[in-house]
Amino acid sequence: MSINTSMLWADIVQIREKAPLIHNITNFVVMNNTANALLALGGSPIMAHAVEEVADMVKICNALVVNIGTLSSHWITAMEKAIDAAAQANIPIVLDPVGAGATSYRTNTVHSLMSIAAPSIIRGNASEIKACVTEEAKTKGVDSLDSSESAIEAARQLHATYGCTVVISGETDFIVSGGEPIQIKNGHVMMTKVTGLGCTATALCGAFAAVNSQLEMAAAHAMAVMGIAGEMATEQANGPGTLQLHFLDALYNLSAEAIEKRLSAA
Amino acid sequence: MSINTSMLWADIVQIREKAPLIHNITNFVVMNNTANALLALGGSPIMAHAVEEVADMVKICNALVVNIGTLSSHWITAMEKAIDAAAQANIPIVLDPVGAGATSYRTNTVHSLMSIAAPSIIRGNASEIKACVTEEAKTKGVDSLDSSESAIEAARQLHATYGCTVVISGETDFIVSGGEPIQIKNGHVMMTKVTGLGCTATALCGAFAAVNSQLEMAAAHAMAVMGIAGEMATEQANGPGTLQLHFLDALYNLSAEAIEKRLSAA
Amino acid sequence: MSINTSMLWADIVQIREKAPLIHNITNFVVMNNTANALLALGGSPIMAHAVEEVADMVKICNALVVNIGTLSSHWITAMEKAIDAAAQANIPIVLDPVGAGATSYRTNTVHSLMSIAAPSIIRGNASEIKACVTEEAKTKGVDSLDSSESAIEAARQLHATYGCTVVISGETDFIVSGGEPIQIKNGHVMMTKVTGLGCTATALCGAFAAVNSQLEMAAAHAMAVMGIAGEMATEQANGPGTLQLHFLDALYNLSAEAIEKRLSAA
Repeated sequence: MSINTSMLWADIVQIREKAPLIHNITNFVVMNNTANALLALGGSPIMAHAVEEVADMVKICNALVVNIGTLSSHWITAMEKAIDAAAQANIPIVLDPVGAGATSYRTNTVHSLMSIAAPSIIRGNASEIKACVTEEAKTKGVDSLDSSESAIEAARQLHATYGCTVVISGETDFIVSGGEPIQIKNGHVMMTKVTGLGCTATALCGAFAAVNSQLEMAAAHAMAVMGIAGEMATEQANGPGTLQLHFLDALYNLSAEAIEKRLSAA
Repeated sequence: MSINTSMLWADIVQIREKAPLIHNITNFVVMNNTANALLALGGSPIMAHAVEEVADMVKICNALVVNIGTLSSHWITAMEKAIDAAAQANIPIVLDPVGAGATSYRTNTVHSLMSIAAPSIIRGNASEIKACVTEEAKTKGVDSLDSSESAIEAARQLHATYGCTVVISGETDFIVSGGEPIQIKNGHVMMTKVTGLGCTATALCGAFAAVNSQLEMAAAHAMAVMGIAGEMATEQANGPGTLQLHFLDALYNLSAEAIEKRLSAA
Repeated sequence: MSINTSMLWADIVQIREKAPLIHNITNFVVMNNTANALLALGGSPIMAHAVEEVADMVKICNALVVNIGTLSSHWITAMEKAIDAAAQANIPIVLDPVGAGATSYRTNTVHSLMSIAAPSIIRGNASEIKACVTEEAKTKGVDSLDSSESAIEAARQLHATYGCTVVISGETDFIVSGGEPIQIKNGHVMMTKVTGLGCTATALCGAFAAVNSQLEMAAAHAMAVMGIAGEMATEQANGPGTLQLHFLDALYNLSAEAIEKRLSAA
């Protein structure tokens, strides 16, 4: 499959019109950025993690995003409840296995969360995606030790087991589902110097999944938007500080023209 | 009652001179922004939520701000202790019922917190203010489903029950106390695309309440400053990303002249 | 001892080349800024606080940074485990006693953490450093009540007891170890209006300690970089909002020339 401007733009229009409610159980580092990115794109973010309310919150939402970046036992319980509720209500579940492979606690948590219900989309760097398949994979903190391409086989296994779409983030992003992976070549290396843009990508996968039930397309659209907005932002930025603000502005100001001009997918 | 530049400016001067200490028990999404907004205005923020210290911390502070945006049971216990300590020490209590109406857990928590001690000021959007009165009110995540005006009756009931000032945020802000509501018409729609500016408004209510015991005026001054700084920031911004930084700069650079020129209250 | 551009620059080059992994157990207010500052400088931040994983995480890291800004009992347990693991693995431990002196809970926690293992570097404002020595010291929330100079005697006592380097932040920063304190006079007063720049300074101490085992030098280099980047940022900023973004850009764009031109140490 491949992606094109008009299909991508149609999703953005829907997000802006419907303002889908995205329930995020995510990490402390990126909550603010994640919420702002979802708002700038046109979505409506909600952060909630109390075990007493996550199931109720999921039911009024259009997608659930679970991110284990700063996990602890109480939060894992909330993630389990939310995933279970989302599966029952047929709401897309997007999983970000931040730092899987860095500690066995993280790796085990990811495996345990996937056993509650199959995720709809998993997004991570190559090391994290590999750690979703085997506990032997290693990660340097939250940074990948490997090229995106090296994780395609692991992504195929995840797809075979869970039926999910898998996004491997990197210089080239690979969106792996049944067929040939979609490749997105947008983005800029300076984006790796801003914390949490991977987490933002995961949240945007949730926003697109909320309006597009073809999850491979939803994920590809999210990654294309990340890369394109990142390129636009980098052109305005003097460094990673100003980049992150221009990135939000770029999401807010996205146009079909800008997408048409920059989209680099295969 | 109505507000004017000289009274508002007098409060700002006091905040800048005294740097009142504002104790925030608030949500993970906005802690950084809240702290920065209080600093930019001239206040001194402290965030503390451990049950072991909140009562001690409240006692050295000039206002307590409680915000339930990412609540959980441990935090609710801390909020209860802090509210109790603030009431005993006669320190103003400002409550932000984020997402009340979205889940019964949030709605019940708000009602429970108000039963510990009457808040001095409550600030929320129309849906949240309604949910403070009746458990039937519904909220779309943290977004209002209703116009500000529709919550005036609920605000009057809250005032009648608790003696508090109620701020209903929206395109027009209504400050409801005993008499005719004060209306503030400052602000810009792009502010709704920045997460946590409502929470910032609540924190600024705390800063003004710390220097002005006339709480209706304190709340109106806070909302006017929010709207005016938001307008100044929007004129500099290319989108919600740059808006949030220019907003902090605008708070820091506020002058009596800028307020005089822009204040739109009735 | 004194510091000079070439030694400072050599550390920065090492940080950029090795991207040392810095494990932060820090507060909710500053996590995002801290991560971004470490990335902009060239380091690789990881935030993790689960008692189940902190010991594992420490072992793959090059420095541990512990900051008590928004502490609670579960987090203290994690800090204790991490400090113990770091001491066993001979990894530098940097401690930020945020708000020590404001409540006895904070003061006691700092004393308790230091009893697990001696910190390598302690960084705080004058009030906080005094509170590390005596429970009589008072702090206004997280703001110092005293000049940096007034805490030199307390810093010397900490050095005598723990063998650690102590940084007293203020208009002039004092780096206290065995001999004459190093003084850094860089920086700008507007930096005090941005939340968490003190916490950022602590994290940068961790990054420099990860590449320079001479801890007095590492701490002095970190504080010089903070001040120099702060000056560069202030020249670009219209207030504390834009300052914080330009600060990250300045860290990212640091050059030996800029350091040579601005370094003001004795």
